[in-house]
Amino acid sequence: MDTVNVGIIGAGRIGKLHAENLNVIRQIKLVAISDLYADTIRPWANELGFKQVTTDYMEVLHNPEVDAVFVCSPTDTHPEIITAAAKAKKHVFCEKPVSFSIEDTQHVLKQVKDSGVTFQVGFNRRFDHNFKAVKDALLSDAIGELHSVKITSRDPAPPPISYVKSSGGLFVDMAIHDYDMLRYIVDSEAEEIYVQGACRIDPEIGECGDVDTAMSLITFKNGVIATVDNSRKAVYGYDQRLEVFGERGGMTTENDANSTLKISTVDGVSQEKPKYFFLERYKETYVDESLQFVHSIINNTEPPVTGYDGLQAELLAHAAKLSLTEKRPVKLSELLTSTQAQV
Amino acid sequence: MDTVNVGIIGAGRIGKLHAENLNVIRQIKLVAISDLYADTIRPWANELGFKQVTTDYMEVLHNPEVDAVFVCSPTDTHPEIITAAAKAKKHVFCEKPVSFSIEDTQHVLKQVKDSGVTFQVGFNRRFDHNFKAVKDALLSDAIGELHSVKITSRDPAPPPISYVKSSGGLFVDMAIHDYDMLRYIVDSEAEEIYVQGACRIDPEIGECGDVDTAMSLITFKNGVIATVDNSRKAVYGYDQRLEVFGERGGMTTENDANSTLKISTVDGVSQEKPKYFFLERYKETYVDESLQFVHSIINNTEPPVTGYDGLQAELLAHAAKLSLTEKRPVKLSELLTSTQAQV
Amino acid sequence: MDTVNVGIIGAGRIGKLHAENLNVIRQIKLVAISDLYADTIRPWANELGFKQVTTDYMEVLHNPEVDAVFVCSPTDTHPEIITAAAKAKKHVFCEKPVSFSIEDTQHVLKQVKDSGVTFQVGFNRRFDHNFKAVKDALLSDAIGELHSVKITSRDPAPPPISYVKSSGGLFVDMAIHDYDMLRYIVDSEAEEIYVQGACRIDPEIGECGDVDTAMSLITFKNGVIATVDNSRKAVYGYDQRLEVFGERGGMTTENDANSTLKISTVDGVSQEKPKYFFLERYKETYVDESLQFVHSIINNTEPPVTGYDGLQAELLAHAAKLSLTEKRPVKLSELLTSTQAQV
Amino acid sequence: MDTVNVGIIGAGRIGKLHAENLNVIRQIKLVAISDLYADTIRPWANELGFKQVTTDYMEVLHNPEVDAVFVCSPTDTHPEIITAAAKAKKHVFCEKPVSFSIEDTQHVLKQVKDSGVTFQVGFNRRFDHNFKAVKDALLSDAIGELHSVKITSRDPAPPPISYVKSSGGLFVDMAIHDYDMLRYIVDSEAEEIYVQGACRIDPEIGECGDVDTAMSLITFKNGVIATVDNSRKAVYGYDQRLEVFGERGGMTTENDANSTLKISTVDGVSQEKPKYFFLERYKETYVDESLQFVHSIINNTEPPVTGYDGLQAELLAHAAKLSLTEKRPVKLSELLTSTQAQV
Repeated sequence: MDTVNVGIIGAGRIGKLHAENLNVIRQIKLVAISDLYADTIRPWANELGFKQVTTDYMEVLHNPEVDAVFVCSPTDTHPEIITAAAKAKKHVFCEKPVSFSIEDTQHVLKQVKDSGVTFQVGFNRRFDHNFKAVKDALLSDAIGELHSVKITSRDPAPPPISYVKSSGGLFVDMAIHDYDMLRYIVDSEAEEIYVQGACRIDPEIGECGDVDTAMSLITFKNGVIATVDNSRKAVYGYDQRLEVFGERGGMTTENDANSTLKISTVDGVSQEKPKYFFLERYKETYVDESLQFVHSIINNTEPPVTGYDGLQAELLAHAAKLSLTEKRPVKLSELLTSTQAQV
Repeated sequence: MDTVNVGIIGAGRIGKLHAENLNVIRQIKLVAISDLYADTIRPWANELGFKQVTTDYMEVLHNPEVDAVFVCSPTDTHPEIITAAAKAKKHVFCEKPVSFSIEDTQHVLKQVKDSGVTFQVGFNRRFDHNFKAVKDALLSDAIGELHSVKITSRDPAPPPISYVKSSGGLFVDMAIHDYDMLRYIVDSEAEEIYVQGACRIDPEIGECGDVDTAMSLITFKNGVIATVDNSRKAVYGYDQRLEVFGERGGMTTENDANSTLKISTVDGVSQEKPKYFFLERYKETYVDESLQFVHSIINNTEPPVTGYDGLQAELLAHAAKLSLTEKRPVKLSELLTSTQAQV
Repeated sequence: MDTVNVGIIGAGRIGKLHAENLNVIRQIKLVAISDLYADTIRPWANELGFKQVTTDYMEVLHNPEVDAVFVCSPTDTHPEIITAAAKAKKHVFCEKPVSFSIEDTQHVLKQVKDSGVTFQVGFNRRFDHNFKAVKDALLSDAIGELHSVKITSRDPAPPPISYVKSSGGLFVDMAIHDYDMLRYIVDSEAEEIYVQGACRIDPEIGECGDVDTAMSLITFKNGVIATVDNSRKAVYGYDQRLEVFGERGGMTTENDANSTLKISTVDGVSQEKPKYFFLERYKETYVDESLQFVHSIINNTEPPVTGYDGLQAELLAHAAKLSLTEKRPVKLSELLTSTQAQV
Repeated sequence: MDTVNVGIIGAGRIGKLHAENLNVIRQIKLVAISDLYADTIRPWANELGFKQVTTDYMEVLHNPEVDAVFVCSPTDTHPEIITAAAKAKKHVFCEKPVSFSIEDTQHVLKQVKDSGVTFQVGFNRRFDHNFKAVKDALLSDAIGELHSVKITSRDPAPPPISYVKSSGGLFVDMAIHDYDMLRYIVDSEAEEIYVQGACRIDPEIGECGDVDTAMSLITFKNGVIATVDNSRKAVYGYDQRLEVFGERGGMTTENDANSTLKISTVDGVSQEKPKYFFLERYKETYVDESLQFVHSIINNTEPPVTGYDGLQAELLAHAAKLSLTEKRPVKLSELLTSTQAQV
């Protein structure tokens, strides 16, 4: 096999983004797409060459031409769809999180494992040029043993309240990316998390039982201590920075901007704001993660982000919620029964 | 017309680069390509969808399907090819310089003008995100009247001596890009140039009668004073920076790097070198200039870089050579007879 | 009074530093100095103009010429000396911490209050140009309501083990500066602290019952969440940075270096490391804090850093220790009995 | 001799600056000062400890206590005063330029040489931390053979027209500092200069026969090519930057600012402007140059900036003026008769 025929399930913002990125990858052929509003997306889908456009994702899964599916539907539909896809022997790329509960995710991972299909989770930031540069430097032992990691991760503006309500909350929806980044950088499993959070930006978010501002303090099994600083609203743009510190030095990354222009006037010296949001900042990561998913299928190798990675980040997110609710440090092991822990 | 069928003449490095970039532009269809080594490029050309692959560029020009050609052959073949293309009523995108002599360029421009085809010159740096940011800020009057401009333009390594010999020399081959950038930024015509140059990097370059290190001091009709600092060898990578200064402030741009990573160790604080060379730094400009060429054809509007722009930059390059030879400031008007000046 | 006659108690590193800085302040006259090794320091003290050089600090306190004393002796001697100074009606500038226990500090503050002398604690970082710039911007409402603050505070190398043993530990000796900085920046009192710490640099530090690496997560009464990142050994130099974030933006400061030099070579682009340690980085703060102490005496105004400030930072430091020991978030109110809280 | 008794001639801005800086140097004793407005400065002079305050500089020169004088009077008085000082066997520190004409400067240097006194010229920028860092890196062979140097040197605002009239013009008054910096960095003598200049900021400056905007292109005997970019008005502050480029790399320096604060808001990311002017930026250089002058006297060694250095920078400044007037490159040798060249 040197081409992978792809079906896409869910043509919202992220589904469309994937379709357009997949379209420029030589090893991928777009074949089928399902969406509740199939008629609305048909002209766009046709232009991209999709032969099958349907409201029913099962038709995509039963399409014999389809080798792999990208699950881009709302999170609450993930478990059912992934399970069905695994049964239909389709490889699965799934947006984060895999599900809203640890139990569901564990169940899904078991189905996937039993079916033998390739399963990748959409933690796209691992493919960002800045964070990869840090990872590469760590792998080349640039600063020796790692002592601490700090992530700053702020959105430019909060999502609509309707989204907030169904998002699973700041930790499961947003911080989960940062928790995965920590695991990727630290190269060890988290042991405990303590969180402080508040609703500082929009009282409506608080009324949904969510926070918009949070700091996580996390310890890892290898002794690394880490913090994650989240906010739903950095008025200056998408703030995505990483710092690592260790035995023989430290590393930092800055935000990307559209240009390196500096203007000096009587008012000061000013430069451009960070790129606005994830579509701008992480544009190239969506191509890269898909490319590597396809390579994993073609070469039958482990994908760069596994279901296990998905589960671990979810564990951190759920532990974060628990910590905030119970105002105490929470061990990740608390969230797993001994049976579950074996997955 | 909403698609432009393209033929490419010359499939060396830059010809191939254009073909691959054109391939991702929806409004362009790759149709024909000519190269002296047609057989060698055939597999690559087929994969890109070229139906006609030939050793004879006249076949491309006589192909009725072809709307426009990209002239990517050696400079000494430009005048003949462009003239033939204009006669065949094909739109022309030509790499810089148009020719090795002012007379030839003026002759070519006359042919193009008479034929009415669209003609664009490949000054791709005008499409660089950093330089465009400066231009945009100037257009929005961010710093008032312009007083001075400084360009730093250094290659990471000199070209092979064989290339140096047929390149037309540092000014016609390399500094010409910077001279065009000055005209674009200053928005006025150059009046006089004085140059100091030397062979500091490779004596073989000197033996070809060329220099590898040069500083140009240029005055413009609107009073702006500018410098261009060229070197054939910046060991740290492609150094492409621009500074402007005026009544109400100054602007600078920095080099682009592959990441924003900073590593602090006992040896110091270090960051990445500039992107290596033009393929890396100016990657996106090749798509943008082609896109705008196609838009100009489709909408029958003036292209963003005209034959006139090509001629003016060549005038500066030839005046620079004369200044170096005669060790004196040279007025651009010296290089034009009164008849020529009217083109 | 327009000149303040000063006595210095303790002529170790910090005592000598103060003496030399005080010497350039016009409103100060150096009068007396005590040190256990009076003979050793005599030549140096004479050159600076001290008339009285003694082993007995009580002689300094009984010297009628002395208006104010700088207490630069080891922390365990502070309570006794400050109490005696207050009784002798000498104004007191005391290095941090005031004492090793909340009770002692509270007792000392009561004596000082009753005596009516001016009392200032040596939190010199409040006078740093970078941190002052942040404070000034906050005061001018540059970013609206504050949501979070992050401090990075790393020493270039751990102190000798002998010092570690008598230092009171990382929180009381080192992080206390950062806790005070938080209070200064946040402009509210801390409510709770949670700490993770480890011995990652030198096992001997662990054997003293201390840590060399720690992260503090602190909440303030006004809702601000803050982190402090401490390490005893940043091989690249003294890492002292501050970030604040709020409603209308964010602010960061970088480390100071000896020059702005950047060197680009084939190995990368490198710049100077941060200034080595506190003597280099905070050099000018020692003059400024003393100048303001003297102004407070002369004008009979409240000093810029009060005993109350000293106590609050100590509360945070002791709560941090407790948090680490008991592996739980600690409220500052736990450390104060209701009577104590009134001080 | 381990203390140098100093007299100051001229108590304008720079004279007062020197006096206050000299006052903190242990090896210097302020003894005498002369100024046309002696009565006005008397209270200030007394506070600094000057015993002799007079309107007549000859009294300073005849004061047997005085070892060395700082000549801070207007440039047109320099030759007479320096000559008298040399005759009185007083060491001389003189502000730049030594005089307004090459002949006068040569005459003065001859007197100084014959008298055997130490003579230093006030090119204070050689002692700037950023430029020294470049010089030190060059001396340690960080970038191999030097190919080019670029200086940006812009004042924040033009001087009063009255000053412009008596200043000797932009090249003799302002660019002379940059020409000296070039010589210091390049470590070779200038051979030729070509200048373009204009009056862009204030027409009154043009009416004085001066320019306010200029670019110099200079070649050195060792093959280095250099540019100096001068403006009398950078609205964003004092712009003082240096770039060097060579065989194995390049170096740049940035302006100093009062803090490293960056503020990110909806309007962009902004930082502080450069320090306002020479008093702020070069504050510490005035102490350092004086300290080294004193060391040269005490140790009877050559001062760090000699009369020869003064002459060479003046040659460049006068050649720059000639180049601008005659619109041609000017060789420095044109300005010296064969006899003069021997000085």
